[in-house]
Amino acid sequence: MDERVAFQDRYPDDVAHCYGCGRLNAQGLHIRSFWDGEEAVCTFTPSPWHTAIPGFVYGGLLASLIDCHGTGTAAAAAFRAEGAVPGTEPRFRFVTASLQVDYLRPTPMGVPLEVRARVEEVRGRKVVLSETLSARGEICVRGRVVAVRLPGDMAPPASPASPAP
Amino acid sequence: MDERVAFQDRYPDDVAHCYGCGRLNAQGLHIRSFWDGEEAVCTFTPSPWHTAIPGFVYGGLLASLIDCHGTGTAAAAAFRAEGAVPGTEPRFRFVTASLQVDYLRPTPMGVPLEVRARVEEVRGRKVVLSETLSARGEICVRGRVVAVRLPGDMAPPASPASPAP
Repeated sequence: MDERVAFQDRYPDDVAHCYGCGRLNAQGLHIRSFWDGEEAVCTFTPSPWHTAIPGFVYGGLLASLIDCHGTGTAAAAAFRAEGAVPGTEPRFRFVTASLQVDYLRPTPMGVPLEVRARVEEVRGRKVVLSETLSARGEICVRGRVVAVRLPGDMAPPASPASPAP
Repeated sequence: MDERVAFQDRYPDDVAHCYGCGRLNAQGLHIRSFWDGEEAVCTFTPSPWHTAIPGFVYGGLLASLIDCHGTGTAAAAAFRAEGAVPGTEPRFRFVTASLQVDYLRPTPMGVPLEVRARVEEVRGRKVVLSETLSARGEICVRGRVVAVRLPGDMAPPASPASPAP
């Protein structure tokens, strides 16, 4: 595992159970994202069962990578836009309002996939990102995510195990 | 399990390993779709680990449901448009070219989800579908899928275990 601290490693415990990127979801994918200059990068190697047609990666997994890398990058971008240090805020988590995924070519199994996100817009509670997913240096998928800051009706209630903001 | 024959039950063995809907993928989701008049319906109950924020369903799983219900319905619609009987053709499988998912409201965990697809267009190798995903009768997600008939470069080679078309 990459030893660096990923965006998702900073999520408060009570919102760190996402199947895609939550460090506290034992069955989850554990998608992790990092800055690389102005872009954010995520590397993920699918498991053998993440197949579509044999030899190629399942489109729903690719959509999940675009999705969680997008919301993670949105949180990091919003932190950065406010001049805040990740992990110092009580709650700062984004969810997906809209997801667009275009499958340009079949994505091969058996190699690491690189997902790159570019922040197109940070405005109020909304962050818009454009993404690419590549295998062996070739872009296989393009994505677009509109992420919004966690709405109040999704926020878990405060509890002794999850300190209130 | 629903005892009826689903669209996906008709997929030839060598293209029935999809993580989302392949009956031959032991780790997969086994998404299954059926006609209900002019619409196609899929019912799916997420597992406890398919969570986003606790209490709500993971968006990547919702995208996967929209995706596989869409390609399954595309195959069935193409069959129907040609007047063919599902399961009588040597190979007839669709993959996703483009997927749009709009998350209108959080989707609650712990209840069956109903996905409905409407065929908007069948033209040549392409089928366009619009979809809704509901929980407790309320639409939580809207989707749009552009599905295309399996391109030649994704088709598995013929083998003794998978009769050639």
